Amino acid sequence: MAYDRIFNFSAGPSMLPVSVLEAARDDMLNYQGSGMSVMEMSHRSKVYDEIIKQAEALLREVMGIPQNYKVMFLQGGASLQFAMVPMNLLKTGKADYIVTGQFSGKAYQEAQKYGEINLAATTKPENFSRIPQQNELKLNPDADYVHICYNNTIFGTKWNYIPETGNVPLVADLSSCILSEPIDVSRFGLIYAGAQKNVAPAGLTIVIAREDLLREELPAFVPTMCNYSVMAQNESMYNTPPCYPIYVCKLVLDWIKGMGGLSAMQAHNQKKAAILYDYLDSSKLFKNPVSPESRSLMNVTFRAEDDEINARFVKETSANGMSNLKGHRSVGGMRASIYNAMPVEGVEKLVEFMKAFEK
Amino acid sequence: MAYDRIFNFSAGPSMLPVSVLEAARDDMLNYQGSGMSVMEMSHRSKVYDEIIKQAEALLREVMGIPQNYKVMFLQGGASLQFAMVPMNLLKTGKADYIVTGQFSGKAYQEAQKYGEINLAATTKPENFSRIPQQNELKLNPDADYVHICYNNTIFGTKWNYIPETGNVPLVADLSSCILSEPIDVSRFGLIYAGAQKNVAPAGLTIVIAREDLLREELPAFVPTMCNYSVMAQNESMYNTPPCYPIYVCKLVLDWIKGMGGLSAMQAHNQKKAAILYDYLDSSKLFKNPVSPESRSLMNVTFRAEDDEINARFVKETSANGMSNLKGHRSVGGMRASIYNAMPVEGVEKLVEFMKAFEK
Repeated sequence: MAYDRIFNFSAGPSMLPVSVLEAARDDMLNYQGSGMSVMEMSHRSKVYDEIIKQAEALLREVMGIPQNYKVMFLQGGASLQFAMVPMNLLKTGKADYIVTGQFSGKAYQEAQKYGEINLAATTKPENFSRIPQQNELKLNPDADYVHICYNNTIFGTKWNYIPETGNVPLVADLSSCILSEPIDVSRFGLIYAGAQKNVAPAGLTIVIAREDLLREELPAFVPTMCNYSVMAQNESMYNTPPCYPIYVCKLVLDWIKGMGGLSAMQAHNQKKAAILYDYLDSSKLFKNPVSPESRSLMNVTFRAEDDEINARFVKETSANGMSNLKGHRSVGGMRASIYNAMPVEGVEKLVEFMKAFEK
Repeated sequence: MAYDRIFNFSAGPSMLPVSVLEAARDDMLNYQGSGMSVMEMSHRSKVYDEIIKQAEALLREVMGIPQNYKVMFLQGGASLQFAMVPMNLLKTGKADYIVTGQFSGKAYQEAQKYGEINLAATTKPENFSRIPQQNELKLNPDADYVHICYNNTIFGTKWNYIPETGNVPLVADLSSCILSEPIDVSRFGLIYAGAQKNVAPAGLTIVIAREDLLREELPAFVPTMCNYSVMAQNESMYNTPPCYPIYVCKLVLDWIKGMGGLSAMQAHNQKKAAILYDYLDSSKLFKNPVSPESRSLMNVTFRAEDDEINARFVKETSANGMSNLKGHRSVGGMRASIYNAMPVEGVEKLVEFMKAFEK
């Protein structure tokens, strides 16, 4: 493999396309004749303004974001969004949360600081092995919003339908699946995503919000930096934004567009996931614990019954150019995160290895 | 100049050492045999852990940070600190703020959301052209802390003494002067700095806090991500930190150490500033509006009386490989930001140009 790179199955931060890294490398000392690195540019300079504007335009084009949605490039990760969403969107003080894993659980917990939060559904009793169905959701028609985590990185599950919430805005954490396939943004009130899985290096959070949901007047305790309205009005430049991750985001979006957009990404991701799930469904050694209708395209969990075998598998893959296959410490076993930038060859190599290991 | 780079006098983000950019470039596709870019590494991997640990150890060594201080690598810039400081440090609800420019003014304004904030001194009536003296400070001995901005980027002033605050902790925004010269950290309760001027690309905020000031129990409305105690206990890994800026921070600290540490940086910066101030003191065309005892080492402001001349100067320097010399929109004129990475030759070239322009 060029540059002696390995197949990195990390859940995040994770692989970036080689062509993106090459462009970042080639621009490092002098970005397109500007005489400086992107890291050194004033965020208010003309040359940087073009980069951030292109990043937003490409994101809008690739995701098909409607005109009445604002795009924000923020900091603090999904974890800060767990507080910003309730601080900004609670009006009556009531919201519905659906808990399908660790991060949606954290979001639910954080929101309780700010209002009366209803647990509208959870699959915790089933060890988060599936996503609840529409008829299981106990939604309050007067809630200010409904919150879900669309893809659960740790448990390897994904909402394979968009829940119907009537007039109540749907808020979704897309950290581990944004840009992996087409999604109808108009079905959501607000989408947020930490960028470090499918978009850019860590330190950038993308927020896409229907503009009628943004209010200038918030409770006095809300930090200015946590006010969506201020961030949107200042076009993510209330203060210095995370300039370099935004630049890499632009490069990744260029790459996605060049690959054929989100439909092509979806086909690419479905192909990789099928290789893994098909093998797992036939394996006698490894099992995937997720209900088939809730399987993630991005994070595939599996394990052998014997934990010693799991440990040996992780060790041996690591010695063979496949890193970060150990499952999250809260669930054990293995997890292969196969985001956009993971090539088909990486998954093929993994499955070949699994087959040989099983024998 | 190698790579056709220009002298970039931007107030931030700003120049980085060429050797740092070269190392970042060379590591881009495969960091030291890891098979991946630093941007792609799990923040919990061994290889990344070494990077962040080294960054902290180098910062402690270079700045001489005492053992009873915590170092945190956060996000959100100084602007988020304007809220985090009062949210975390107010106990009685009272604090003293000294306003010496735009950013200390913003900090003062934001703090009013959280307590009864006393304006202990300001030089606004003198257009922020100097730093107040100790006997001008109307400090409350019962305040929870005193807040200052140590170097004022826009007005080109700097505290050339550390104010005496008795038993009241001193909190300082060092965004535009951290690492520019030795500083006695033990005189401060808490120091914070956006990294994008002297340390790293934008998206990283360094916080150095005396550990007895960090409290676990904060008001319920404080987002978890804004709780210093949680951030410190998790060693900046409560969630994914801004990994790449932290890596560049480590490279910059390596460079500073190799240059001889902060004493050498101070000599380097004093030399550059003297070249500019000496010329300005002798110029009939350009004037520096700052009281000599309050002059900044990092940001040198100057202007001709005629605004047309100022505009022409900015245009002509830009055409001659010296960018971003336009003053902040709130004050006009010119500003040369000469952070650590600006070589002496850049300042010499600027002064040569100013002399020729004056003639």
